[in-house]
Amino acid sequence: MLKGLSRAGLGEIGSDERFIALAAEYGFQTVDIDAKGLIDRNGLEGARKLLADNGVTIGSIGLSVEWRASEEKFRDGLAKLAEDAAAAAALGCRNCCTYILPATDYKAAHFTVLATRRLRTCAQILGAYGIRLGLEFVGPHHLRTAWANPFLWTMHETLDWIDAIGEPNVGLLFDAYHWYTNGHTLADIEALTPDQIVHVHINDAPNVAVEDVLDNGRIYPGEGVIDLAGFLKALNAIGYRGSVTQEILSKEAPAADAATLLARSKAGYDKVYQAAGLV
Amino acid sequence: MLKGLSRAGLGEIGSDERFIALAAEYGFQTVDIDAKGLIDRNGLEGARKLLADNGVTIGSIGLSVEWRASEEKFRDGLAKLAEDAAAAAALGCRNCCTYILPATDYKAAHFTVLATRRLRTCAQILGAYGIRLGLEFVGPHHLRTAWANPFLWTMHETLDWIDAIGEPNVGLLFDAYHWYTNGHTLADIEALTPDQIVHVHINDAPNVAVEDVLDNGRIYPGEGVIDLAGFLKALNAIGYRGSVTQEILSKEAPAADAATLLARSKAGYDKVYQAAGLV
Amino acid sequence: MLKGLSRAGLGEIGSDERFIALAAEYGFQTVDIDAKGLIDRNGLEGARKLLADNGVTIGSIGLSVEWRASEEKFRDGLAKLAEDAAAAAALGCRNCCTYILPATDYKAAHFTVLATRRLRTCAQILGAYGIRLGLEFVGPHHLRTAWANPFLWTMHETLDWIDAIGEPNVGLLFDAYHWYTNGHTLADIEALTPDQIVHVHINDAPNVAVEDVLDNGRIYPGEGVIDLAGFLKALNAIGYRGSVTQEILSKEAPAADAATLLARSKAGYDKVYQAAGLV
Amino acid sequence: MLKGLSRAGLGEIGSDERFIALAAEYGFQTVDIDAKGLIDRNGLEGARKLLADNGVTIGSIGLSVEWRASEEKFRDGLAKLAEDAAAAAALGCRNCCTYILPATDYKAAHFTVLATRRLRTCAQILGAYGIRLGLEFVGPHHLRTAWANPFLWTMHETLDWIDAIGEPNVGLLFDAYHWYTNGHTLADIEALTPDQIVHVHINDAPNVAVEDVLDNGRIYPGEGVIDLAGFLKALNAIGYRGSVTQEILSKEAPAADAATLLARSKAGYDKVYQAAGLV
Repeated sequence: MLKGLSRAGLGEIGSDERFIALAAEYGFQTVDIDAKGLIDRNGLEGARKLLADNGVTIGSIGLSVEWRASEEKFRDGLAKLAEDAAAAAALGCRNCCTYILPATDYKAAHFTVLATRRLRTCAQILGAYGIRLGLEFVGPHHLRTAWANPFLWTMHETLDWIDAIGEPNVGLLFDAYHWYTNGHTLADIEALTPDQIVHVHINDAPNVAVEDVLDNGRIYPGEGVIDLAGFLKALNAIGYRGSVTQEILSKEAPAADAATLLARSKAGYDKVYQAAGLV
Repeated sequence: MLKGLSRAGLGEIGSDERFIALAAEYGFQTVDIDAKGLIDRNGLEGARKLLADNGVTIGSIGLSVEWRASEEKFRDGLAKLAEDAAAAAALGCRNCCTYILPATDYKAAHFTVLATRRLRTCAQILGAYGIRLGLEFVGPHHLRTAWANPFLWTMHETLDWIDAIGEPNVGLLFDAYHWYTNGHTLADIEALTPDQIVHVHINDAPNVAVEDVLDNGRIYPGEGVIDLAGFLKALNAIGYRGSVTQEILSKEAPAADAATLLARSKAGYDKVYQAAGLV
Repeated sequence: MLKGLSRAGLGEIGSDERFIALAAEYGFQTVDIDAKGLIDRNGLEGARKLLADNGVTIGSIGLSVEWRASEEKFRDGLAKLAEDAAAAAALGCRNCCTYILPATDYKAAHFTVLATRRLRTCAQILGAYGIRLGLEFVGPHHLRTAWANPFLWTMHETLDWIDAIGEPNVGLLFDAYHWYTNGHTLADIEALTPDQIVHVHINDAPNVAVEDVLDNGRIYPGEGVIDLAGFLKALNAIGYRGSVTQEILSKEAPAADAATLLARSKAGYDKVYQAAGLV
Repeated sequence: MLKGLSRAGLGEIGSDERFIALAAEYGFQTVDIDAKGLIDRNGLEGARKLLADNGVTIGSIGLSVEWRASEEKFRDGLAKLAEDAAAAAALGCRNCCTYILPATDYKAAHFTVLATRRLRTCAQILGAYGIRLGLEFVGPHHLRTAWANPFLWTMHETLDWIDAIGEPNVGLLFDAYHWYTNGHTLADIEALTPDQIVHVHINDAPNVAVEDVLDNGRIYPGEGVIDLAGFLKALNAIGYRGSVTQEILSKEAPAADAATLLARSKAGYDKVYQAAGLV
């Protein structure tokens, strides 16, 4: 499994070009960045060279389409989605991800219907370029009541939703934090096949009651209470071979400089990968 | 548009064979019955002859699959669905319908996801036989709170659901009672194309506040306050040419004998068709 | 049914803006033009005003995606397809069409597989904007052997293909010339529902053996041997209400000026609409 | 990877019940049999016990639907398909397979269109029970001209067809013989993900020119010239963990008794698994 980085948890790390160089310097193999932006600034060959020279690939792009609001906004994003997908494919990235808020101010059944159709359309456009769509279920309890009506937040609900969307290229973005806050188990991971997982996020949780864990209270891998060794071991055992990407959402931006934060991230990965027997 | 009958509102009318004969006698052109049962009892040729001799066709069969409960029950019904569809197709019927309760005891988003996938599977099986699936939205206000969580009840929500199901052979079962209790307008009908309508139900509502109209308080066409002339005119204007089938749900079974009830139904149809200029 | 024009048969008619004005002047109600180009040149409001001032709408846009060649070319067109669809939708046009050559230099089965998937993707993107995709089967016999391997050319084959594509928003572009050269009948039209027809082309054929009719040997409606009165009558009878658009493909561009050709087209429409009892 | 048996190559092995017992006796872990038949004869609990007592599971059921002939025959099989799928699911089998003849007497493009839609329907019904559909491409050269028109026979064509079918639960039945006769390589296997493979067949080919290899000239694993060690190693490396099932089609039924043939099969498996480093 590849060690990956997103910007979340690295403070002010600067341009994507610098992000790529620093990720490589600290031993990471993938970065989550905007493929189209990289090509726009560097040209296709320049972007390919930049990644190749640093020995880094793109773990996942983010879904730029706004699928949670009006139909007009949704449609407005589809041409760009095709361009995003073309850019990702041109750089060898096969993954695009979005997250699912566990509650909604819309009437839940009607929003489900609209979102099912919209995410299917996104998956179809991505699929034309060989890109998969990863859906991230979001576990922290406080978010379940942060909007008027409950939506979907467990792994099993999300797998059911993926069935309802019905496209072959849709799977999970599997985040350790949401696995933990949902109270899911190692057996839940072991019941998956690797193709059900598009992308993985890793991070850790403080030692508080699971019901009180805050979405923006995440800490670095290996510094908290989540069984990340078991998490990684199980993912590896079922045959997952993609990125395991750090995502640390916190209330305030980390104060340290990028080098310090990267070193801390690297130490966290080394610790949990070793604990999982993955070295 | 064809004049059609269901059993609802006709009291103890007896076997389907008798129902067919009586429908024909009172000038109706379609009946909603179980196609497979008719063939099982009469053989395919016998069933065809019975319908042909009476000049009657089948308006719609009912969806026998239980899609609102457990996965096991759902699956248990799929083989029979294929047989139902084969029987309907063999008798020239292209329609199969089910109704949507406007509330559910399940978590709404998750139930939506499951039901979307299940109804898609039903539509796919029916589609293999050239049969369409009609979804009936249900308008009476009291039912919206009869179960714990709100589901879908308007025409527009149901059209959005049909988009989410995503199969070419799914449309509306359009019931005058639910059109009325939702406060929908003639313009709402005029905005449809005929292929969006699989089947039509007709009945009337008593002169009470629309919020107080009860699902099982339906009366015969032309005896209440629904603008059935406008309803029929609009359906005809957009090009709908299928059945308009009576469905009178009432708290207690009607006391009169079948002949009286059929005569009353016929009088109701004559009145509203005439008012709509359809004679 | 709306009287429509394409550029084919009108010689050098100039800009789309002039085409719209001339179409209106000669009593036509729709034009087949590039919606995105019209907006690019006139702005959205300008394009809307231009159409409204002339009492003209867009009958259909053309499918700009290259679905018959390499995968790379296919993908390259998808972002523009989303923009084309957005533009068409913004101008109230719901139709996008492409034609099917009746033979191919590719291995037929493999090309069918690729084209099925590609046209499905196109339909999915169009469907996100409420646009339908019309597939035009092409009948002239000489084209069936113009490439190495036979493909699809009849209405029934094309309807089967539409089933295989499997999206709700795909139908026929129904061209009188291809109906005639296939030897299809009025009963073939009468067996359709209006939603199976996205768009209609009209033109006429010279009095030669049907096997010798050339694709680029088309003449003006009413000047040849096709039973256009029956054709129009049948389309109207099944409830088709969209455009009937002239398309005259000829070996050499017509020599006359636009005014002469428009007057000739208008006379042809008047004749065949009258013969069909549509005035 | 599980060692599996089909009846092909075992001569007159008797009932499925005996087949299960003998497979277990000779160290095989899966059998390809009719799940529904096993339940019909033994009851669900009896069938489960029989398999469990012998430590054997079902590798794959066969697709009983006739999808290569008339529409009527196709439809006639769908109810049974639902029953087959329910039976397989009840016995823990997730796979159903069919083969693709590399030529057809039908017009190739039209047959492709019909078969795409029919196999999609089969996949949809199977999918409702959690069963996958495996498509077996067939490589021997002589079959490519055994019917009038070429169809599909390579792995890549079949993957493209799977995309066109468009259901998440369709993949390959990957047969060593067809891999060999197509001239496919180890790199072709290594480019797959395990979820693209539903089932695997193993067998060997005599030492003749690859163009002259006959479909019914198969021999036991390890007795011929196919690089089965490489084949198995590559499948294992990409993460395939399902059955590798022997299928020996020969012109005449093998003359030896079942025990001899089973011992010979076992020896073949031991040899090629060992050569692949899989022990």
